[in-house]
Amino acid sequence: MTFMEVARKRYSVRKYKEIPVDKDKILQILEAGRIAPSAVNYQPWHFIVLTERKMIEKVSQTYSGKWLAKAPAIIVACGDHSQSWKRKDGKDHCDIDLAIAIDHMTLAAVELGLGTCWVCAFDAAKCHEILGLPGNLEVIALLPLGYPAEEVEPTKNRKSITEIVSWESYQGK
Amino acid sequence: MTFMEVARKRYSVRKYKEIPVDKDKILQILEAGRIAPSAVNYQPWHFIVLTERKMIEKVSQTYSGKWLAKAPAIIVACGDHSQSWKRKDGKDHCDIDLAIAIDHMTLAAVELGLGTCWVCAFDAAKCHEILGLPGNLEVIALLPLGYPAEEVEPTKNRKSITEIVSWESYQGK
Repeated sequence: MTFMEVARKRYSVRKYKEIPVDKDKILQILEAGRIAPSAVNYQPWHFIVLTERKMIEKVSQTYSGKWLAKAPAIIVACGDHSQSWKRKDGKDHCDIDLAIAIDHMTLAAVELGLGTCWVCAFDAAKCHEILGLPGNLEVIALLPLGYPAEEVEPTKNRKSITEIVSWESYQGK
Repeated sequence: MTFMEVARKRYSVRKYKEIPVDKDKILQILEAGRIAPSAVNYQPWHFIVLTERKMIEKVSQTYSGKWLAKAPAIIVACGDHSQSWKRKDGKDHCDIDLAIAIDHMTLAAVELGLGTCWVCAFDAAKCHEILGLPGNLEVIALLPLGYPAEEVEPTKNRKSITEIVSWESYQGK
């Protein structure tokens, strides 16, 4: 697959086959996150891999979608604010760096035949508590992982290029 | 190239050949950003493509690296805070969504033989002013674009998997 094919094939998978994901494949996905770029190469990330039912179910209670508890694995993607780069004006690049690493992982998963879903609308404070995280870590996203239960043709309903692009100046055509 | 090959090949290109990038290739890169996922599919992004020397040089004054002014093109990646999704607890997903789109573009560029560099350490307020942007837009990153002037074997100096991953619980082995 070309990169564009991988990117087009990725979609939010919310139904997984009830089979585990080999540790070797999880490691390949983590590797894609590991090599991601980050501001000043600070790599302010920590990933907690959950494959045990009890913890997956506990963490899933922080999110309204019942399907999450059935995911064979969840990568809890945490940003470390004590390690992330801050720009002169104070802007913290933690979210940006984590998003890059997570994006890498979602795309690597596609190539391995695995599905993922960015879960962001969860109760971050509760999740932080359940996982017993220190104050410097923030859970940025939950990334469930598994073999898609059905073949779905991704529908990418997106704005057009003309809506999102200006040429040479803001709102230039 | 597999996805992992693309990801491994990407590096921060800071020296470009003095040849322009075809509009068709720029559009292919923008397309990779366009199809990126975002929270609730809000797509809170706007990309300003600069290829004219005058504007590239002006915008480059917001950054200390002299090399930026010589880039054949710059994609100014803006986040739209009036469109971005905010979680119940107030967390704004603008940075995350923009980072996903930019990551897509940096990887699409690799496959087209083009180089990019995440430029984040710029004066965002000054850049905002130079481009005459409205208050809802924030420049998240400058993404210079061009053909790499030299073949470089990327050195990815990264933390090890054991440093960045816990299993089943925080700091679980």
